[in-house]
Amino acid sequence: MDKRPVGVFDSGVGGLTVAHALKQLMPGENLVYFGDTAHLPYGDKSEEAIRQYSEKIIEYLLSLDAKAILVACNSASASAYNYLVSEFDGKVIIMDVITPVIEYVVNRQYKKIGVIGTKRTISSGVYPGNITEKSPGTTVVSLATPMLVPMIEEGFIYDDISNRIISAYLSNEIFEGIEALILGCTHYPIIRNQISRFFNFNVEIIDSSKIVAAAFRNLLESHNILNTGNNGTDRFFVSDYTDFFGKIARMFFEKEINLVKSDIWAT
Amino acid sequence: MDKRPVGVFDSGVGGLTVAHALKQLMPGENLVYFGDTAHLPYGDKSEEAIRQYSEKIIEYLLSLDAKAILVACNSASASAYNYLVSEFDGKVIIMDVITPVIEYVVNRQYKKIGVIGTKRTISSGVYPGNITEKSPGTTVVSLATPMLVPMIEEGFIYDDISNRIISAYLSNEIFEGIEALILGCTHYPIIRNQISRFFNFNVEIIDSSKIVAAAFRNLLESHNILNTGNNGTDRFFVSDYTDFFGKIARMFFEKEINLVKSDIWAT
Repeated sequence: MDKRPVGVFDSGVGGLTVAHALKQLMPGENLVYFGDTAHLPYGDKSEEAIRQYSEKIIEYLLSLDAKAILVACNSASASAYNYLVSEFDGKVIIMDVITPVIEYVVNRQYKKIGVIGTKRTISSGVYPGNITEKSPGTTVVSLATPMLVPMIEEGFIYDDISNRIISAYLSNEIFEGIEALILGCTHYPIIRNQISRFFNFNVEIIDSSKIVAAAFRNLLESHNILNTGNNGTDRFFVSDYTDFFGKIARMFFEKEINLVKSDIWAT
Repeated sequence: MDKRPVGVFDSGVGGLTVAHALKQLMPGENLVYFGDTAHLPYGDKSEEAIRQYSEKIIEYLLSLDAKAILVACNSASASAYNYLVSEFDGKVIIMDVITPVIEYVVNRQYKKIGVIGTKRTISSGVYPGNITEKSPGTTVVSLATPMLVPMIEEGFIYDDISNRIISAYLSNEIFEGIEALILGCTHYPIIRNQISRFFNFNVEIIDSSKIVAAAFRNLLESHNILNTGNNGTDRFFVSDYTDFFGKIARMFFEKEINLVKSDIWAT
């Protein structure tokens, strides 16, 4: 049993939905979470910038003795995962939030599915590219839905405004006939049911957090580093702190947490 | 006549509305614009972070020989203006986008006015504090409206969704009976007419860009550094470049421009 913590990071606090699923499944793991609130949102940043930020964050998590890293951000997974795996080869095992979802989808051999996410994630083409390569019979349609993150963060949820915004995006004709929709952003599980209702509950909503948590557990087990204890301790760091982040963090992690500022970019 | 450029900066491309007003009034000025797209939006950042970013940007603009600096961002003006004036005292003259608007408002002696802006600008209390100090008969009500920036950037303008979002914010009862509304964010001039329509054209909409441009002209004149030529050249830099910023920059500056990446934070 390896008691070193697992390192989880995101551009902000949205990745806490994944951290929450991870702790539900592996309550014994000690968690170190890093939210890069100084640079959020990653969805608007360039690939190059995201790679540079992610690399520095992983170095920081390694300095806190992380035994494995989970990239809990779709934009960072889409832009930087391959780069990070090669940069940290032999130093630490890294998992992203996209690969496990692609495996899940490929195994199910859908005829047509949709993906929504940030501009960065969608423009990378990582979901359609990988899914159709491994499952050529599946049609994948994708749409950038950049208003959803600020909408969720500002608390416009299950109300008229959020219904209108969701409807404006999802009534796009490309989504006609989809069997499943991948929520390609760690913020979106918060509005999972609202999206499901938009489709009259006829479309499977694929929320990556549980799929990723299960895959991460398998990864830790296969490396014999799973912590099977009961009550791990969790630490949460952000590169810039405001009360607002402290407040909304609770929504994503589903319990009160203490965010500590750690400006790893300060000179 | 001083042919050195004027330096203008913002967290992103919204400050181009102010840069545009400035060039309309002073076409001979050479402009160097810096948009800190690596850290945008400033509206969610801490005061400390914004001060640190602004200081570095001004140093960069000085390295490009700027003769005067305009802080074309309300969040930076609210959080960092006094700090910057004291840090750069004797080195360069600096103007913000809030002080000229406060002067304009104080001269008009309104009974009740409203302010909208980012979380950072509104929580600073800079508008109500300064206005009521100088014009004790004026009641100032303010509201953070953080969905408006992503809404504008994503092109939700003059449509049903933007009407709903604007209405959700502005139908707040605190705004009852206002005579004027200050647009406390350099993005908001884009939806100026839509906001005016929400109030049935009965409320004066105070768009700071023209007020600030006029005040900046006076400042340059009073220091004998105004460039009275006709056809200045403009340069535009951003700390992170994506095609999206290139595309929306046109909306704010009202003509095609070339954004050049200059990562002043790279080590």
